[in-house]
Amino acid sequence: MGALEEAWVVGELENRVGLEETEEEELDAGSGSGSVPNATRAIEEAVRVLLQGLGEDHEREGLHKTPLRVAKAFREGTRGYRQKVKDIVQGALFPEAGSDNGTGYAGGAGGLVVVRDINLFSYCESCLLPFYVQCHVGYVPSGQLVVGLSKLSRVADVFAKRLQDPQRLADDICSALQNNINPDGAAVALHCWHIQFPEALRCIPNPKHPSKLDMQGWVQVSVCSRSGDFEDKNKSFWNDFLAVLKLRGINLEGCSKNCFPIQSWCPSRSLEVPLCNGHSMESPSNGKISSKPGPIRPAMVTAVTSILHSLGEDPMRKELIGTPYHYVQWLMNFESSNLELKMNGFDLGKLSLQKKSADVVNSQSQIHSVLNLPFCSQCEHHLLPFHGVVHIGYFDEEEGKGIARSILQSVVHYYGCRLQVQERLTRQIAEAVHVVFGRGAMVVVEASHICMISRGIEKVGSSTATIAVMGQFSTDPAAKALFLQTISNSTSSGG
Amino acid sequence: MGALEEAWVVGELENRVGLEETEEEELDAGSGSGSVPNATRAIEEAVRVLLQGLGEDHEREGLHKTPLRVAKAFREGTRGYRQKVKDIVQGALFPEAGSDNGTGYAGGAGGLVVVRDINLFSYCESCLLPFYVQCHVGYVPSGQLVVGLSKLSRVADVFAKRLQDPQRLADDICSALQNNINPDGAAVALHCWHIQFPEALRCIPNPKHPSKLDMQGWVQVSVCSRSGDFEDKNKSFWNDFLAVLKLRGINLEGCSKNCFPIQSWCPSRSLEVPLCNGHSMESPSNGKISSKPGPIRPAMVTAVTSILHSLGEDPMRKELIGTPYHYVQWLMNFESSNLELKMNGFDLGKLSLQKKSADVVNSQSQIHSVLNLPFCSQCEHHLLPFHGVVHIGYFDEEEGKGIARSILQSVVHYYGCRLQVQERLTRQIAEAVHVVFGRGAMVVVEASHICMISRGIEKVGSSTATIAVMGQFSTDPAAKALFLQTISNSTSSGG
Repeated sequence: MGALEEAWVVGELENRVGLEETEEEELDAGSGSGSVPNATRAIEEAVRVLLQGLGEDHEREGLHKTPLRVAKAFREGTRGYRQKVKDIVQGALFPEAGSDNGTGYAGGAGGLVVVRDINLFSYCESCLLPFYVQCHVGYVPSGQLVVGLSKLSRVADVFAKRLQDPQRLADDICSALQNNINPDGAAVALHCWHIQFPEALRCIPNPKHPSKLDMQGWVQVSVCSRSGDFEDKNKSFWNDFLAVLKLRGINLEGCSKNCFPIQSWCPSRSLEVPLCNGHSMESPSNGKISSKPGPIRPAMVTAVTSILHSLGEDPMRKELIGTPYHYVQWLMNFESSNLELKMNGFDLGKLSLQKKSADVVNSQSQIHSVLNLPFCSQCEHHLLPFHGVVHIGYFDEEEGKGIARSILQSVVHYYGCRLQVQERLTRQIAEAVHVVFGRGAMVVVEASHICMISRGIEKVGSSTATIAVMGQFSTDPAAKALFLQTISNSTSSGG
Repeated sequence: MGALEEAWVVGELENRVGLEETEEEELDAGSGSGSVPNATRAIEEAVRVLLQGLGEDHEREGLHKTPLRVAKAFREGTRGYRQKVKDIVQGALFPEAGSDNGTGYAGGAGGLVVVRDINLFSYCESCLLPFYVQCHVGYVPSGQLVVGLSKLSRVADVFAKRLQDPQRLADDICSALQNNINPDGAAVALHCWHIQFPEALRCIPNPKHPSKLDMQGWVQVSVCSRSGDFEDKNKSFWNDFLAVLKLRGINLEGCSKNCFPIQSWCPSRSLEVPLCNGHSMESPSNGKISSKPGPIRPAMVTAVTSILHSLGEDPMRKELIGTPYHYVQWLMNFESSNLELKMNGFDLGKLSLQKKSADVVNSQSQIHSVLNLPFCSQCEHHLLPFHGVVHIGYFDEEEGKGIARSILQSVVHYYGCRLQVQERLTRQIAEAVHVVFGRGAMVVVEASHICMISRGIEKVGSSTATIAVMGQFSTDPAAKALFLQTISNSTSSGG
């Protein structure tokens, strides 16, 4: 049992519509298998197949709870299939009299209601990765009825928690509002952000706005959908909607229905889908270390197809045909043996030290600083990406000499492209650098975890920093402080 | 029943620790009373007493589900009393080897792990209103164990979901991490924002950063708490923690334990607690309309005391002694008869039209624009504040003449200081202004709803805009567009 000591909780929860994510605490608290539904068990089994396909031992510490964790997250992330809009708005329609002199529209009758900046997460139907949504919803009340404001957010969430693409998500929300609230019109505008695949993420610019959610390098699209009075050119509601969004700095000008090239949305859509199983994909070479994903294993594709089925989807729906391949391709970027095979002969201890004037070298302390090396890794607890930047500092005897940035980038890539946890990634990079220089190494990793922000806790904007120190950095606080200050200076100057 | 058609949900939820808020859908879906626990029923009964004390008919449409809604929100908002940190971290401690050569600290063993910018809501123990928390947590792993990153957020939430003040919240989180994860040290830094009481809110500056969560005019404090290595002056962990926060633009310099004047935190603490029941409070006069809250009714104070008891708190705990008075005082700002009594003789139709050069008057259209009138109202569905600004536009025959801003502010205050919904507030202000000028009025209300952002859906940053139009504005889209553009210009220039 978890921490809930009182029986009332179950009673209060059992009729809920908007249940939040499935927690993993029940895993940790050793709940019996009897309480896990068949669909979740089936996904769990499929995830084990995926882990095996990645060359992992799914019984190892850190992974043995991953299949159930991922299965619950998948079910929870698609809970919208099991929710009905009618149940959400039913009983939340409140009578609000309009103007009674017939000369105008006021408040609940003929006015305009807009809720701006609703943060959501949805799931890309092309690759099964979460994408971030900023949602704006408006409607023109009719029949002297208004709907509770929070319901607009909840209705949007019902459709976000399905496998989606941006335009269908907007259309689904819009028509659900139109059909269930029966207003004179409904309008939906979405800004959506999709994470890049690892190769592209390596090229993102340095984060310049550290206090904001780091969306640089993500694919962004804006879509909208409208009905009723919002489509009536003789009425100004659509323009009013845009004007009200503009008051919050939200610019949708030029955005109309189906205005964006839908093909360019999910990065997986540009990937080649093999005609026969076992055919491997092309992917760009990654600097010193080639990370061409290995061959797609038919068993993994079959496993993902079964996941789609367990989520209540039709794997033969045309938008989902390529999805199992895309998801497996994504996962194969993090194959355990992928890079190790290519690392034969790559000996960090034998790396030639190249003069590298681009490094920030503090001449007094001889600390070399190589900052803002982008990375994308995969959380081994949730099979979801975490990504960000790595800062590396190390001592070197010879002033002005150091290791090439591209080699350190490859080291970062080498340790990032596997199932990981951020703490271990940080330590492994520090140890690898320390082996070369011996005097001391310090590594700071700053990352956003999709598992932290897309799952139930939805801590949008949170970020995790980890530090590892070796050698002189572990005994010399001034050196640590100096390196942290170097990062700080670089961040604030956008460098 | 709600929309959940499958029995598995209950099974999956029943062991959950981190259950999210109690939904109101079950109210709407007509679930039987049998599933509601006694504590919730008791609070529901107390809320009915409060509504009666406010002069409301708790059976009227819009209010009849409010008591249960509020009761569930209170229980859910204090769910932390029924959660145990041990259950959250248990099973989420993962072994991560540290450096094996003994010369340094790396990753999981002796490194530093920091999660920044965790958004939370807590409940003020002085007045029972929610306050917003931005939380940063760090720890120094020991025993070659790291904790799942999301657990840091969950542990923080356990203590946020109790009646708190900022320093105790920081201390609770810190000692819970120290005692349950057993790291070499734990550090917590919080930025907390508390809503002002209505009188103070009327004086907030205009929102200048419309795309950000509007915290202007809120009371802000920063607090921190630390243990173990973070308190060791010979080690640099505390400085490292501060440096890592600084990378995200978070500045805690000068903030140390108990550094802020705790007395000035909750605005209710500056209110006089009556020595005997029935004694009325002093409050500043509000322009044309006096809104001195009516006498505190003993039955209401008793009702709030019983709520504290039902939440599992000790109403005699010294920090809670004044809480029932403070909460009732807050509520009495929105007493239904409060302002109506004072409005005797205040006839909008007889208002003298004063020359008011401060108004923005578009000479071509003769539209007067009075922008950014601050307001604070109380959501009648959740008994939680919503607040923001009102923009009023109206036609006037005589160029340059108009109604004084202070009078319109009073009109806004008059309709705001009651149990409301934003749509009705918008309409009522529009109708009131239209009555005076006859030709046309347009009102735009922009508001943040604490009920939208503090309850389960936690849509931080969302904001709602409502528009009502009367007379010429309802037939002349160009006039609407012109007024919206005027607001937009004013917002972007910070005016």
